[in-house]
Amino acid sequence: MKKIAIIGFGVVGSGVAEVIEMNKDKIKDHLGEALEVKYILDIRDFPDSPFADKIVHDADTVFGDEEVSIVVETIGGAKIAYEYTKRALSAGKSVVTSNKELVSTHGVELMQLADDNSCGYLFEAAVGGGIPIIRPLHRCLAANQIMRIAGIVNGTTNYILSNMRSKGLSYDEALKQAQANGYAEANPTADVEGIDAQRKLSILSTIALSGEYVAPGTINTTGISSVTLDDIEFAEKLGCSLKLLAVFTHPMFQKPACFVAPHIVSKKQLIASVDDVFNAILVEGNALGESMFYGQGAGKLPTASAVVGDVLDAALHEKRDAHVKKWYVSEKDEVILPYEEIVTDIIVKAAPSNVDSIKNAFGEYETETVLDDSSACAVIVKGIMHKEIDNLLSSVVGASWFHYMA
Amino acid sequence: MKKIAIIGFGVVGSGVAEVIEMNKDKIKDHLGEALEVKYILDIRDFPDSPFADKIVHDADTVFGDEEVSIVVETIGGAKIAYEYTKRALSAGKSVVTSNKELVSTHGVELMQLADDNSCGYLFEAAVGGGIPIIRPLHRCLAANQIMRIAGIVNGTTNYILSNMRSKGLSYDEALKQAQANGYAEANPTADVEGIDAQRKLSILSTIALSGEYVAPGTINTTGISSVTLDDIEFAEKLGCSLKLLAVFTHPMFQKPACFVAPHIVSKKQLIASVDDVFNAILVEGNALGESMFYGQGAGKLPTASAVVGDVLDAALHEKRDAHVKKWYVSEKDEVILPYEEIVTDIIVKAAPSNVDSIKNAFGEYETETVLDDSSACAVIVKGIMHKEIDNLLSSVVGASWFHYMA
Repeated sequence: MKKIAIIGFGVVGSGVAEVIEMNKDKIKDHLGEALEVKYILDIRDFPDSPFADKIVHDADTVFGDEEVSIVVETIGGAKIAYEYTKRALSAGKSVVTSNKELVSTHGVELMQLADDNSCGYLFEAAVGGGIPIIRPLHRCLAANQIMRIAGIVNGTTNYILSNMRSKGLSYDEALKQAQANGYAEANPTADVEGIDAQRKLSILSTIALSGEYVAPGTINTTGISSVTLDDIEFAEKLGCSLKLLAVFTHPMFQKPACFVAPHIVSKKQLIASVDDVFNAILVEGNALGESMFYGQGAGKLPTASAVVGDVLDAALHEKRDAHVKKWYVSEKDEVILPYEEIVTDIIVKAAPSNVDSIKNAFGEYETETVLDDSSACAVIVKGIMHKEIDNLLSSVVGASWFHYMA
Repeated sequence: MKKIAIIGFGVVGSGVAEVIEMNKDKIKDHLGEALEVKYILDIRDFPDSPFADKIVHDADTVFGDEEVSIVVETIGGAKIAYEYTKRALSAGKSVVTSNKELVSTHGVELMQLADDNSCGYLFEAAVGGGIPIIRPLHRCLAANQIMRIAGIVNGTTNYILSNMRSKGLSYDEALKQAQANGYAEANPTADVEGIDAQRKLSILSTIALSGEYVAPGTINTTGISSVTLDDIEFAEKLGCSLKLLAVFTHPMFQKPACFVAPHIVSKKQLIASVDDVFNAILVEGNALGESMFYGQGAGKLPTASAVVGDVLDAALHEKRDAHVKKWYVSEKDEVILPYEEIVTDIIVKAAPSNVDSIKNAFGEYETETVLDDSSACAVIVKGIMHKEIDNLLSSVVGASWFHYMA
C-alpha cells in the first residue's frame, strides 16, 4: 500500500482523489500495490465530500508522517504552496504538482531541494493540463535539439477567441460568456493578459534548453484583451485563424527567443483548427521534424489524470527518477534574445489600395500580397526584426500589423 | 563514455548513427557522458559511409564485448532480428528497436527475457516513428483506463489516399507515384493491405490493456487496395475524409475490440485533416478525455530520433527501467471481441432516392440522412453490430457501406 497526501482540496485536488478512486484497479495493476490517499490538507471542511474523513487541518500531521512518501500540491499560487513544497521536499517526500506559477517562479530552487533530498519534483500537469508534454519533450525528444515550440497553452483565451469567431461576439461579450460558463475566472487577468501562457512557456523553454532557466519575467507577453472581432474576421478572410500562441524558437547556432502574442495562423497548420478550451503544442526537433500534442489543457479530471500519472511515476521510481534535467540559472546576462531583436513573420494590414505603399515601406524584405479588395489590403512580410516594424509601418497610412505563422 | 552497437545499417540504422553524431553535444549534456557507436554490424560493407570504420561482420565481436551495454536493432523482420535480439538480451544488453513486426510477434517472450536478464527492451520507434506515443500511453496516461485509440499509423497509405484526393488519381496511379517518390516499397503489400497498421495496433492495444497481449493475427484487417477515387470523392461530398484507421475501443465493463479498416471521418475530427505521410494517434482516457499525438510516422531521422531517445533512457536507467509493463499471454480464450460482434457506426450509400429504403432496412437503429441528391444518397447508422450489416444491406438495391467516425 502506497500512501500519499493531497494538499489543497480545490478543483484539481478533488479531481486527484476522484481519479485515484475511479481507476483504482488500473492504478493497482500499474503500481503493483494499492494507492491510498491518507490525508487531504485544507483549511476548509468538506462534510459532504466522499473524502471528508481524509481531511486534516494540521500540516504537521502530513509532513511528520513517514508513511506518506508523496505529496500532491494542488494549492496553487506561489506563497503557501511554496512553503509547503519546501517542507515536503526537505522531509524527503516527492512532490507532484499542477502549479505552473510555482514551477516557473521557484523551479530552480525546488528541483535542487528535491535533488538534495533524493526525492522528485514532478509537474507534467503544469503545462497542457492532461496532455502529455513535459515527459515527451524531455525524454522522447532527448536526442533532438528543439528548434521551435508554438503552443495554444491557455484554454480560457482559446475559448474566448473561438466564441468571438463562431458567434460573432465582441471581446467583452465573449469574456462574460466564458465567465458564466466557468471557463474564465471572476478576475481573468492572468489568463487574458497572457500571464498564464507566459508561465507555461517559461517551463517549456527551460526544458527545451536542457534546464537553462528562462524566467517568466523575461518573456515579452501580449494577451488578447485588445483583440477585436474585426481582427478575427480579418484573419478568417485570409483563410487563417487568430490564436494566442506561446512561441519558442532556437535556430542552430543562434540565441533562443520566446514571446507570447496573438498570431494569425494559416489553416494549413493543424493548430489553427484547435478550438474551444482545447490546447495544442507544436514541437519541432532537428531530427524529428514537426510533432504536435493535443488535448484538454485544463479541467478537473484531465489535469488530475496527469497529476496521478506523475504520482505513479514517483512511486515506481522513488528516490531515483529525475522527472526533467535539473534547472539552473545561467551565467549569461540574457538567456533569450531581447524582444526587439527577434526576427519574425508578420502581416501588415492597411486601408484599401495601399499594397504598393506597404511594399515600398517594407521593400528590403520578402513580401507577399494576401488581400487587396475594397475592404482592406494585407501583405505578409517575412523575416523582419521586431524593432524595425513600427518605424517602417509609420510611413503607411492607417496600417497595423499582426504576428503570422505560415 | 557510453558505448552501443547498431545491428542493421539500413535507413533507420544509418539514421541512428547520424542523429548521434549530429546532436552529440545535446546528447552528452542529457546523459552526463558521451555516447559512442562502437560497432555497426551488417553483412555489407559501406566504404563511402562516414561510419565505415565502425562496420563489423562478426556478431560474436558485438555480443561478446562487455563494453557494449545497449544494442540498437534496426534489421527489421522477425528472423535474424529475433535471433540477435535474444542473444543481446541473454547477454544482459538492453535492446532498442523500431521493429514493429518483431515486437508485435515476439514481444511477450522478449520482454520476459529482458526481465530475466535485468535489462530493457524498448520500442518507442515501433509505432508512429518519431512521434512520442508508447511512453506517453504507458506512463503519462497510467492513471486512465484507455477507452479508445484511433490512429493513422501508416504513412504510405495516408500518402496514397491524400494524393488520390488532391490530384484525382486512381488507387493504382497513386500507388505508382508513392513508389516513384520512395514512400511505398516495390512490394507494397504490408502497407496497403493494412498489415503494418495491424502490427502497430497490436502493440498499442496491448499497452492499453496493461500488457494483456493482443496478437496481430486476431485483429480483423482491411487495407486500402479496394478504395476507389469514387469512395474518396463521396467522403469529401459529405464533408469528411477517407482514412485508414487502426481502432481500439474498450467501453467500461465490456470486452475490448480492435480492427483496421478504411473509415469515413468527419472533418470535425482533427485527425481528418492529417495528410500525406504524417501520422496521428487519437487516445481517449476515462479521466483525460481525448488527446492526439501527431508527427512524422516514418522516415530516417524522425524514426532514428525516437530510437536514440530510447537509447538515452536505457543508458540513464540501466537495468532498472521497465519501458512498458511486461506483456503476458492471457488465459482467456479471446482477449478481444470477434469482429462480427463489434458495435460500430457506419455510413450506408445507395443509388438516388433510396433513403426510405435504407431507413426501412435499418429501422431498429438510430439513423441520420447525410446525402440525398441526384448523385446518391447516404445515411449514417449508429451502433450496429458488424454481423448484422450485410444481411440488412441486402434488401437495399445497389447499396454499400463504410465505417464512420463522427
